[in-house]
Amino acid sequence: MRYARVALAGRPVWGRVGEKDIELLAHSPLDGRPDVVGSVPVDGAHWLPPVIPPVFYAVGMNYPRHIAHAGAATPERPEAGYRANNALTGHRSPIVRPADVEGRFEAEPELVAVIGRTLRHATRRQAQDAVFGWTIGNDVSARTWQHQDRSFWRSKNSDTFKPMGPWIETDVDALAATTTLRVNGEVRARFATGDMVFDPFDHIVAITRYSTLHPGDVLWMGAESACALTPGDTVDIEIDGIGVLSNPVHLEGNPS
Amino acid sequence: MRYARVALAGRPVWGRVGEKDIELLAHSPLDGRPDVVGSVPVDGAHWLPPVIPPVFYAVGMNYPRHIAHAGAATPERPEAGYRANNALTGHRSPIVRPADVEGRFEAEPELVAVIGRTLRHATRRQAQDAVFGWTIGNDVSARTWQHQDRSFWRSKNSDTFKPMGPWIETDVDALAATTTLRVNGEVRARFATGDMVFDPFDHIVAITRYSTLHPGDVLWMGAESACALTPGDTVDIEIDGIGVLSNPVHLEGNPS
Repeated sequence: MRYARVALAGRPVWGRVGEKDIELLAHSPLDGRPDVVGSVPVDGAHWLPPVIPPVFYAVGMNYPRHIAHAGAATPERPEAGYRANNALTGHRSPIVRPADVEGRFEAEPELVAVIGRTLRHATRRQAQDAVFGWTIGNDVSARTWQHQDRSFWRSKNSDTFKPMGPWIETDVDALAATTTLRVNGEVRARFATGDMVFDPFDHIVAITRYSTLHPGDVLWMGAESACALTPGDTVDIEIDGIGVLSNPVHLEGNPS
Repeated sequence: MRYARVALAGRPVWGRVGEKDIELLAHSPLDGRPDVVGSVPVDGAHWLPPVIPPVFYAVGMNYPRHIAHAGAATPERPEAGYRANNALTGHRSPIVRPADVEGRFEAEPELVAVIGRTLRHATRRQAQDAVFGWTIGNDVSARTWQHQDRSFWRSKNSDTFKPMGPWIETDVDALAATTTLRVNGEVRARFATGDMVFDPFDHIVAITRYSTLHPGDVLWMGAESACALTPGDTVDIEIDGIGVLSNPVHLEGNPS
């Protein structure tokens, strides 16, 4: 199943995405099987982030080639940081580059696990069962700020810096997939989605040793590579079996 | 006014706190003036965190004496990081020290600003008008993890490490107040709440240059000093004009 959130008359509605139509749902599928209450065409849908997480976890260095390229040490244990919900935006909505960004402004293509259960002290098997489905994230980053600031507040959490979507796919072996990053249709990176130092279940076991995970929490899994974005570009991230997350890049004050 | 959230039959209900009774409210006061739908006594109330924030901002080094004591550089501009909602707990609920914490386990008494409006590109005056009220936070920290981990995930965001409350006070000049930290009734720290490098409005202006603030977002303002906590202790943080946030400290696996 593919579950999405779309805007209807300015309000978020959950939907189940088919070939041509989105069946509208009475409530979130995270709260049990919902009734179908209507439908809208897929074409022209206004896609929202497929979930607003209670906690937004994000893993940093997690792909061997990324770590080697950065000259960083390989993490010895799973550790996640956090991102902020204000930065979330949906499929096809613009990534807005603030006017005062200098230096590299980049996309990072990431697999996202969506948690479906309340979970504490999870075994690996419980961690596997607790993932409701998978979506795609773009961890847009302003590198000069990332290196000069004490936290990632504006480098990774400015409004629109966290596109997520287009939907949550519940039936996919995401760790066997391939991630492809394209800018204006041209392939800029391609890597094995599951080639991670610690996989999502390792992280869920580690997190739940100390913290309760809740339905709707998301875990962004890091990227193997990044590529530059320029206003006017369109950036697509494809994970086969999930879909394509596509966003245009605008310059602040210059909606195009 | 003092606005709180209490648990009734296991569900959160907003209330307006008086001398002896809590008037129960039809909805959050952040969504407009609510009707009164009942009342419960203050005595015996089960206090919840007074708000669950869409984004949980926290300032680090922000008091000159703390910075001098840490031998750190004074921040040149306002910068906030993030904490995680799973860690929130209410007034009188236990802070649970995980069994494998080693080294210093400490309380940090903090003023918390609660945002009441949607806000972007705020002036200082707009920032002042956007604060709905003030509450108290205890930024409980496991120092060995804080220094050895890449992020603050477990050092500051394990379950129960973020007591907040007891309520939101809307009518107080919080920056003119005094913060007092007591353990088992004994004063361990006392400082001028407003003696900050950058005050809440400086931070709101800075954050909203890049990020939208939403009603219910919280901004924890940092602490001047910390003190050790041991299982069996009760830690109280008082900010005059707001109230007292009190929490017992338990050891994981050893309730009470």
